Amino acid sequence: MQTLESLVLGRAVVGSDAPVALFNPTTEEAIAEIRGGGIDFKAVLEFARSSGGPALRAMSFAERGAILKTLSHAIHEQREALIELSIQNAGTPRGDAKFDIDGATGTLAYYAALGESLGDRRTLADGEGAQLGRTPRFWGQHVLVPRLGAAVHINAFNFPAWNMMEKAACALLAASPVIEKPGTPTALVAARIARIVHDCGALPAGAWQFIAGSLGDLLDHLGSQDAIAFTGSSRTAAILRGHANVVRQNVRINLEADSLNAAVLAPDVEPSSETYSLFLSNLALDMTQKSGQKCTAVRRILVPKARLEEVRADLVAALAKVKLGDPTQAEVRMGPLASKAQFDEVRAGITRLAAAGTVACGGAERARERGWFVAPTLIVARDAEAEVFHADEVFGPAASLLGYSGEADQAARLVARGGGGLVSSAYSNDADWTERIVAGLAPWHGRVWLGSDRMAEQALPPGMVLPASIHGGPGRAGGGEELGGLRGLAFYQQRTALQGFKSGLAGYAPAESAKPAPK
Amino acid sequence: MQTLESLVLGRAVVGSDAPVALFNPTTEEAIAEIRGGGIDFKAVLEFARSSGGPALRAMSFAERGAILKTLSHAIHEQREALIELSIQNAGTPRGDAKFDIDGATGTLAYYAALGESLGDRRTLADGEGAQLGRTPRFWGQHVLVPRLGAAVHINAFNFPAWNMMEKAACALLAASPVIEKPGTPTALVAARIARIVHDCGALPAGAWQFIAGSLGDLLDHLGSQDAIAFTGSSRTAAILRGHANVVRQNVRINLEADSLNAAVLAPDVEPSSETYSLFLSNLALDMTQKSGQKCTAVRRILVPKARLEEVRADLVAALAKVKLGDPTQAEVRMGPLASKAQFDEVRAGITRLAAAGTVACGGAERARERGWFVAPTLIVARDAEAEVFHADEVFGPAASLLGYSGEADQAARLVARGGGGLVSSAYSNDADWTERIVAGLAPWHGRVWLGSDRMAEQALPPGMVLPASIHGGPGRAGGGEELGGLRGLAFYQQRTALQGFKSGLAGYAPAESAKPAPK
Repeated sequence: MQTLESLVLGRAVVGSDAPVALFNPTTEEAIAEIRGGGIDFKAVLEFARSSGGPALRAMSFAERGAILKTLSHAIHEQREALIELSIQNAGTPRGDAKFDIDGATGTLAYYAALGESLGDRRTLADGEGAQLGRTPRFWGQHVLVPRLGAAVHINAFNFPAWNMMEKAACALLAASPVIEKPGTPTALVAARIARIVHDCGALPAGAWQFIAGSLGDLLDHLGSQDAIAFTGSSRTAAILRGHANVVRQNVRINLEADSLNAAVLAPDVEPSSETYSLFLSNLALDMTQKSGQKCTAVRRILVPKARLEEVRADLVAALAKVKLGDPTQAEVRMGPLASKAQFDEVRAGITRLAAAGTVACGGAERARERGWFVAPTLIVARDAEAEVFHADEVFGPAASLLGYSGEADQAARLVARGGGGLVSSAYSNDADWTERIVAGLAPWHGRVWLGSDRMAEQALPPGMVLPASIHGGPGRAGGGEELGGLRGLAFYQQRTALQGFKSGLAGYAPAESAKPAPK
Repeated sequence: MQTLESLVLGRAVVGSDAPVALFNPTTEEAIAEIRGGGIDFKAVLEFARSSGGPALRAMSFAERGAILKTLSHAIHEQREALIELSIQNAGTPRGDAKFDIDGATGTLAYYAALGESLGDRRTLADGEGAQLGRTPRFWGQHVLVPRLGAAVHINAFNFPAWNMMEKAACALLAASPVIEKPGTPTALVAARIARIVHDCGALPAGAWQFIAGSLGDLLDHLGSQDAIAFTGSSRTAAILRGHANVVRQNVRINLEADSLNAAVLAPDVEPSSETYSLFLSNLALDMTQKSGQKCTAVRRILVPKARLEEVRADLVAALAKVKLGDPTQAEVRMGPLASKAQFDEVRAGITRLAAAGTVACGGAERARERGWFVAPTLIVARDAEAEVFHADEVFGPAASLLGYSGEADQAARLVARGGGGLVSSAYSNDADWTERIVAGLAPWHGRVWLGSDRMAEQALPPGMVLPASIHGGPGRAGGGEELGGLRGLAFYQQRTALQGFKSGLAGYAPAESAKPAPK
């Protein structure tokens, strides 16, 4: 059986610890294994800091952008092989596999173009300069410079390609060497990409390392110029945030964690409208894409009480059209959950939700005799205020349907009970209602998606993370911020106010060529 | 004896716990006392969130700016009384008292003008919008909206006026209600300002609360929309950062902690130059202003080895001119340390530094028979690499003099051994040397100050924190960021990506009138 390799200190390493099996979630067969151990993590960090970092910092943004373009092409060239691995190891139908892999190459291409647009620069200006003294002679200019540490990326199992490469794209463009740890259950895809990146030779030595298996004592060796970016559960996020050395050294940390994303239907939306069609199609997609294992998937659907029955029926009908089954089959739209642990957790979660409502479709049962399949599940809440719907993120193809008064303020208050999320969506053609829902949702989210007739034909769904918009959210969602164009680089940079003689600072001022960029 | 009052839930409260005495550090006499206890901190937070927050958010930036202007005037009107209190309770000569109090009113006035320039807006655009779909119909616009929680400010003893009001100015302009806790030893000044702010009635109920004494169980009640901004020791900072509820709830936290700020003299600076005069006068000021109890004060002075003796002699001469003594006397330029604890710690710190070098002036001895006086102290390091000079922040009128090769890179490497700082300064008229020192210092600092002949006449000293430039630093300095114009508001705001139909988002786009502003 294949044993995944780590790529550290310029070479492949297979660990010596007891093996952990990776499975095909459709067949429940073990298909590969990971072994931790045998890695000197202090040396891994030092290799990144002393070799990868200086080499990246010696390059311009355009040069680093060109590397990202090379990586995007190299990964895209092996797209078919990666799709195959994703089907095998993540249980994704072909469409879901592409969503992950094309998301990775697309995000790399976006940041490649951003790098190109920044040109020869090595330092970014942060805003315009300002006069500080009696005359402009004493001048201030903020700059963003690369930090000198390593970026440790602890990635989620659900997007082994995209989640690793969206983090890496921002870090590498900002001149930060990366150490990537994949989510174990789907590490086959991540390991193959890590190998492609390594073999294509575009990155300098030490800029790219990959850990298949445990991070061992790595966190104990982090210093104040290092950074951790994590995607996963809020439980693990809190452990990382409270880690003694992370706290002591003030290690920078960015967390993306649980999120009970909501979709809110406004009372003005007619059943015959484009907005209503968009609402239904987005919900059906969001609940079943990646079998609902998406940090941006909708968990709570809020509709005016009078519309509950109509939405229930329409949504059940839409979900019934989603063909569940063996993801190697072309007609299948939804595969199994990615792991046995996921399968057990999601079933337990559905059972908890179901106890507080009625099951409109799906349920906690095993949906196929073999494989970790759960059917698309909709629970109609008996009481929209019940805590379980707002506190319990079931990370699978399940959502709850909650009735509200139709008032934007009441909807926003219910959504806020989720304690902070990545994205919520609202569907309305009423400008006043929309303004009120934005006011209520914005403080609790990193992203608010607004559906309406005017954009229905053009819109990308709320579950899709775009590199031009930030990804992250307050509170339960981790408090982090990724992507958002240049905003995604700031985590890997130090903002510094330079103060001195004005013309001496001219080289740090914003240049036309340094201004943003690709759409 | 006067007992300081807390101002909570709209009324003055005197605690019931055992009293803690406040002293006149010049005479060592107790002059007031603080008693904790008797406060329902959960209710204090709820009052801020449910009363102060909504009232502030209902106002425009211009309206909140107008309030800051009123506060600035109200405090300025009592300037003489506040100077008197500062002399009594903080042991500051008149000039140092003004530095603190005028810093507070000046920062309020700066943010008042910034608010005025932002006009009617309640939400700030964050950058230009971007096309997200195939056509501009599907559009993205980032916005910064007020968070819905309370801002808890834990302030340092050294700047009872400025440190409280620079935090409050940013929070209040961003529509965040504040709960201010002063540093205990100098709380008389803070309490008087708190009373002025309360009595002037400019702020809505719940927007301003003040805790004289312990914060009790307040941290246990913080939620994910609340924020803590702290200035003080890195030991306390790590405790706050690792606090179980802060970690669990993902409470936002901004820390300003220890900083071993450095000043670097380049080899090109001639003894007869304006730059050299500026270097000496800044050092003498920085070491003795506020008796060196300034988070931005210089702790390490790096000079080319060949210049060590010259700088030592010149600096000792400059320090000898600083008249130490009773701060009520007009000719006195430097008073005592602010507390017995400070006195003990600074003397112990000087003893540790002195063990690794030679004392050029001053020393760990008590400098006057009565009062917590330490003389300006310069220690010439035997070995510039010795750990004590880079790890041990002596928060008083003491600095170490370290020789280096003259190479910018070597100087930057030594400075970086401080592990991250608020501000370091470099003095040179050589553009290449300056570029290299900026590259080396910037990743380790929130601010880099560059002294040269061309700006010498106009420059404000590096120890002065200006509202237009950020204040904070990575690593040991806490990793925080305050001030910096609008940047200082971001901590109290949520950045959210709005996605939807382009013209529906027009109201959130940047307006000409919303663009920055006062110098």
